[in-house]
Amino acid sequence: MSEPWTLHPDRALPADPATRDLAREIYAATKDLPLVSMHGHVPVEWFAQDTSFGDPAQLFVVPDHYLTRMLVSQGETLPRLGVGSTADEAVETDPREIWRRFCAGWKHFRGTPTRYWLEHELVEIFGVTQRPSAETADAIYDQVAARIAEPDFRPRALLDRFRIEVIATTDPAWATLDDHAKLAADGYGERVLPTFRPDPLLHPDRPTWREDLERLAAASGVDVSSYDGYLEALRTQRERFVAAGARATDHGHLFADTTPLDDAEARRVFDAALAGTVTAAEAQAFSGHMLFQMAAMSAEDGLVMQLHPGVLRDHASAPFAAFGPDKGYDIPVVTEFTRSLRPVLDAFGHHPRFRMIAFTVDEDVYSRELAPLAGVYPALRLGAPWWFLDAPDAMRRFREAATETAGFSNMSGFVDDTRAFCSIPARHDLARRVDAGYLARLVAEHRLDLDEALDTAVDLAYRLPLAAYERR
Amino acid sequence: MSEPWTLHPDRALPADPATRDLAREIYAATKDLPLVSMHGHVPVEWFAQDTSFGDPAQLFVVPDHYLTRMLVSQGETLPRLGVGSTADEAVETDPREIWRRFCAGWKHFRGTPTRYWLEHELVEIFGVTQRPSAETADAIYDQVAARIAEPDFRPRALLDRFRIEVIATTDPAWATLDDHAKLAADGYGERVLPTFRPDPLLHPDRPTWREDLERLAAASGVDVSSYDGYLEALRTQRERFVAAGARATDHGHLFADTTPLDDAEARRVFDAALAGTVTAAEAQAFSGHMLFQMAAMSAEDGLVMQLHPGVLRDHASAPFAAFGPDKGYDIPVVTEFTRSLRPVLDAFGHHPRFRMIAFTVDEDVYSRELAPLAGVYPALRLGAPWWFLDAPDAMRRFREAATETAGFSNMSGFVDDTRAFCSIPARHDLARRVDAGYLARLVAEHRLDLDEALDTAVDLAYRLPLAAYERR
Amino acid sequence: MSEPWTLHPDRALPADPATRDLAREIYAATKDLPLVSMHGHVPVEWFAQDTSFGDPAQLFVVPDHYLTRMLVSQGETLPRLGVGSTADEAVETDPREIWRRFCAGWKHFRGTPTRYWLEHELVEIFGVTQRPSAETADAIYDQVAARIAEPDFRPRALLDRFRIEVIATTDPAWATLDDHAKLAADGYGERVLPTFRPDPLLHPDRPTWREDLERLAAASGVDVSSYDGYLEALRTQRERFVAAGARATDHGHLFADTTPLDDAEARRVFDAALAGTVTAAEAQAFSGHMLFQMAAMSAEDGLVMQLHPGVLRDHASAPFAAFGPDKGYDIPVVTEFTRSLRPVLDAFGHHPRFRMIAFTVDEDVYSRELAPLAGVYPALRLGAPWWFLDAPDAMRRFREAATETAGFSNMSGFVDDTRAFCSIPARHDLARRVDAGYLARLVAEHRLDLDEALDTAVDLAYRLPLAAYERR
Repeated sequence: MSEPWTLHPDRALPADPATRDLAREIYAATKDLPLVSMHGHVPVEWFAQDTSFGDPAQLFVVPDHYLTRMLVSQGETLPRLGVGSTADEAVETDPREIWRRFCAGWKHFRGTPTRYWLEHELVEIFGVTQRPSAETADAIYDQVAARIAEPDFRPRALLDRFRIEVIATTDPAWATLDDHAKLAADGYGERVLPTFRPDPLLHPDRPTWREDLERLAAASGVDVSSYDGYLEALRTQRERFVAAGARATDHGHLFADTTPLDDAEARRVFDAALAGTVTAAEAQAFSGHMLFQMAAMSAEDGLVMQLHPGVLRDHASAPFAAFGPDKGYDIPVVTEFTRSLRPVLDAFGHHPRFRMIAFTVDEDVYSRELAPLAGVYPALRLGAPWWFLDAPDAMRRFREAATETAGFSNMSGFVDDTRAFCSIPARHDLARRVDAGYLARLVAEHRLDLDEALDTAVDLAYRLPLAAYERR
Repeated sequence: MSEPWTLHPDRALPADPATRDLAREIYAATKDLPLVSMHGHVPVEWFAQDTSFGDPAQLFVVPDHYLTRMLVSQGETLPRLGVGSTADEAVETDPREIWRRFCAGWKHFRGTPTRYWLEHELVEIFGVTQRPSAETADAIYDQVAARIAEPDFRPRALLDRFRIEVIATTDPAWATLDDHAKLAADGYGERVLPTFRPDPLLHPDRPTWREDLERLAAASGVDVSSYDGYLEALRTQRERFVAAGARATDHGHLFADTTPLDDAEARRVFDAALAGTVTAAEAQAFSGHMLFQMAAMSAEDGLVMQLHPGVLRDHASAPFAAFGPDKGYDIPVVTEFTRSLRPVLDAFGHHPRFRMIAFTVDEDVYSRELAPLAGVYPALRLGAPWWFLDAPDAMRRFREAATETAGFSNMSGFVDDTRAFCSIPARHDLARRVDAGYLARLVAEHRLDLDEALDTAVDLAYRLPLAAYERR
Repeated sequence: MSEPWTLHPDRALPADPATRDLAREIYAATKDLPLVSMHGHVPVEWFAQDTSFGDPAQLFVVPDHYLTRMLVSQGETLPRLGVGSTADEAVETDPREIWRRFCAGWKHFRGTPTRYWLEHELVEIFGVTQRPSAETADAIYDQVAARIAEPDFRPRALLDRFRIEVIATTDPAWATLDDHAKLAADGYGERVLPTFRPDPLLHPDRPTWREDLERLAAASGVDVSSYDGYLEALRTQRERFVAAGARATDHGHLFADTTPLDDAEARRVFDAALAGTVTAAEAQAFSGHMLFQMAAMSAEDGLVMQLHPGVLRDHASAPFAAFGPDKGYDIPVVTEFTRSLRPVLDAFGHHPRFRMIAFTVDEDVYSRELAPLAGVYPALRLGAPWWFLDAPDAMRRFREAATETAGFSNMSGFVDDTRAFCSIPARHDLARRVDAGYLARLVAEHRLDLDEALDTAVDLAYRLPLAAYERR
């Protein structure tokens, strides 16, 4: 590579010249639109405290399981990448050393979105002009470290620089939302929104369930020693989230099942869980029942219900024991929606205050299940390609598989779903480019007029996420 | 949109200029071929009575669940679109008002085949030059209404105008086929063919089963109070269909299962069903058993057996209760073919008089199951992309996923499967364009010679459906 | 077709001119690399005996179930194609007649990889200049027959001509490896490698199981009348394979399940199998248990473990009874990996001596399961598109679906998996072209730099298969 490392203005646009010209024109209509980030995992305390991001390894490598999983697959270990906390692990503490290992493994990211996002970030935000490698690692480290230390590189300043109009965090159901209160007091109440995530409370066989239940009781001030108290505590906390500006709830279940139990059975399972005698089958049924309850509450309080099913968490036991969850060992499984969502959609699919946004990591369901469902139920929106599918070719496949049945209007628009704050502009930009390419093809094939494509591009990038996440 | 609304001659052809030139040449070889419509749902009485189509809303909107489901998903209601019959629904009766609501929702069809077909129909058949919208609705309504009222716009005249060489209707197994007899008397006996569809009779747990059984008895003149009589009645009606020119049967089951029961068990379940004591599991097993019986009868009488499995009907209970079936709430589910078809293919897969054409709305099975099966069993043909998959990108995926294993010769060619009579030319034309694009790519990639592509295009558009649906 | 039948230099490269130019440049970097054929089914005796290939029908038609299945699907019969051995079948014995039937059916291969490979072979290896047809069959037959008879057309000479650096055969676990010993004595010990395939021994409900067990005992010299002896005999034979240069084992199971049984249960099932009382469920559990045992042995002896699950063998009973296995009636089924591989990956997924290469004929699992797994577990590599998926469009879909999550480094590179020796150059060449086209698109979309694409192309074609199949 003799030329300097730069971002090509046409990157991720279709190669065919006729289509590319159209794609450029369509992308131009969205590239400068503000970012609407309605689902993500940036820690709220970053915005509340507004302090510096630390060093390049802490910013880019250590917390990003997309990065570390790829390096692990090629022989690195999590401790050598700075991940780990147990006493007997020799966890690397030198950020420069971690950075070197990351740069030495740069080759392995070829063809992945991680590579695409990082290239965008390093060039655009940090002004890096050399491709990462063992040779260039130190120079890039110094450049990035210096940039991080600048005063305009703190989270709130980046909100402006990144043109983020609104960003949602994800918060446990028992959150007191103090950080969000501080942000509201500082004038960020409309810009940084909480999201209600009750997963651990809805799975009564998780080891931490009773502990988390105590947290819910403490936060809500409601006695949770009965099933009815438990529902009341959840409802109370949802109201707190609504008052703090929340637009949505978020639910990550292994199954999409939403079959309700009758009240007596739900009470019995809850009591068994409290007594420590719940079976795995009962707990699973209870978690489906609770999705139905969450939908019922959404139909009352208008919080948009996000469902992210189908990921088997912590596939390997040793890394989980040593390093905890979210370390790259979450693997998708077959997911069923048609039968699973039927109870909720039959009950609330036409309810004016209910909205569900469904995500999947099983792309088979786009054309078979989710697009047909979203194409008829007014309450259902099809979420953006999620997790492993948030990549150029996968996003294109999503458009091709889902649009013909669901149309554009039944989609949520892009959500970045990330904890990597600096990657947010890159992710939205990539999505806009991929959508421009897809729309350009429809125009080039005379399946859509150009004015319609321009209008749809703005819908997908801006209007649809705002509309889909409007509390109803 | 400043230019008038027209159909581009290259629509739905590949954008890449080199491939497009080839696609144009290939498409030119098929665009004027007669239409062979071997599977569809146009009511036979339209041809028998040959009366006018009514108003634009009745022709385009009210009976088309593709249209109404999309509008419902965006907040319209079925009654406001003229759908409904129960007393307490305020069903819109003004066709112009229905038409306005449809035109106002035009945007929501972007990217869907419905949009593509409608544009073709409105421009080509009705001479419309304005894109539908709230503003243009009335003018288009008047133009379409005037055209519908013209004498050459009756069904039989359109058969000629659309160059439909042959069209199959779908008729209940208990049909007397009087309309087909009238058509035969009028010289249309070779052109409008019946298709034998026994679904309700093969599912003994459906609420109407005993009622439908009475219809079968009445039509066939055979006593159906025993399992053997029931088989005999079915056989008798199949003979009536054969005599009336039928080429095929059609079977829409939730599962593709074809496992036969032994005779004693089949009799027992039949008797239980008559007695009203059949279980859901027994009924499901019986429906699989009856698919096997239908295959056995096909091997006798040579009727081609069409199988359309994998759709969960009437997903939402309230719309079903209010408006009945076929209102857009039928949703695909995972479908299995390899094990499910094994009994039938093992028994009849090499039988010289047996032919099955298998369709799917679960596109995962193209490369995994249906193409491998069709690529070895002489009795099996792979049906055209069905229902939600009858769209430009989905049809392209079908070609790409199935051809490499099944080849072209093991496919049925296009079937339009529609009740929207005026959409038939648009659907066939679109399929020919998509096939031309696929074949053009094979030629451009030097995987096929141009003369072969031209020959194959004619096969797919014309020869293969005629051959696949030839009674054996 | 007026022009002579030739191979276009750009065949199977992308049609878009901008991408094609890049693809040409990338393909040029790999087209002359030696072939690394680490998984295949060429009979070892061909190399050991180094005799002539017989006639065109025996070389091309009779043993190739890709060919015969397609002709059967269009009405030919296996006996008429020279397949069969039972007394009451009129098996065609005239090779010229078989060849004529194959050439007459040439049209049916349009769009299939069989056609692509055959065209490459006939033109490139045999100098054929006419497209096969009923008219040209005899002339082509004579030309091919003459070429086969030439002295430089024996297997060892072709190893040189085809530039095959190394080729692995597939050998039963009870093989004495005498042919491989002869090859070693002749200086081919590093070039023709055995592969350990124990399938029949791991499925105790197969009719030949006890017979095959005797073979294992005879080969290994170990008493297999107990479960522990059985394991010891397998271990002994693995050592023999290691000593003969084997790099890998190969496992074709219906399910990918790897759940171990406890020792007592494994012993109990083994004893039941010996006694002939094993149930189908026990046998299935035992086969999963034995995959776990094979993984454990691989972690000891370093043999790379290849897993090829998900094919239902011998779908039709009559052809199986008449002609035996591998006659084109093996059909894929849904395959699950995430949960199925969990026991093995949890136990050995980070083990330095363990490597698994996983293949699939269910392409749904690329993005959902295999790429996410390969993208984190250092022991797992994602195998090349297998069997029905070893075709231009299917290989492209594999790259598009798997790369974004797994990267290139976690893939095995191409394996040809064929018994059709003369097709090996065509298959590798096609894979290199498809990979060049995919990489060219990444470059054209500015997602990868050209120098990276060139380096990756060589990885995929040459370095990765060598590395993936290195005994650990």
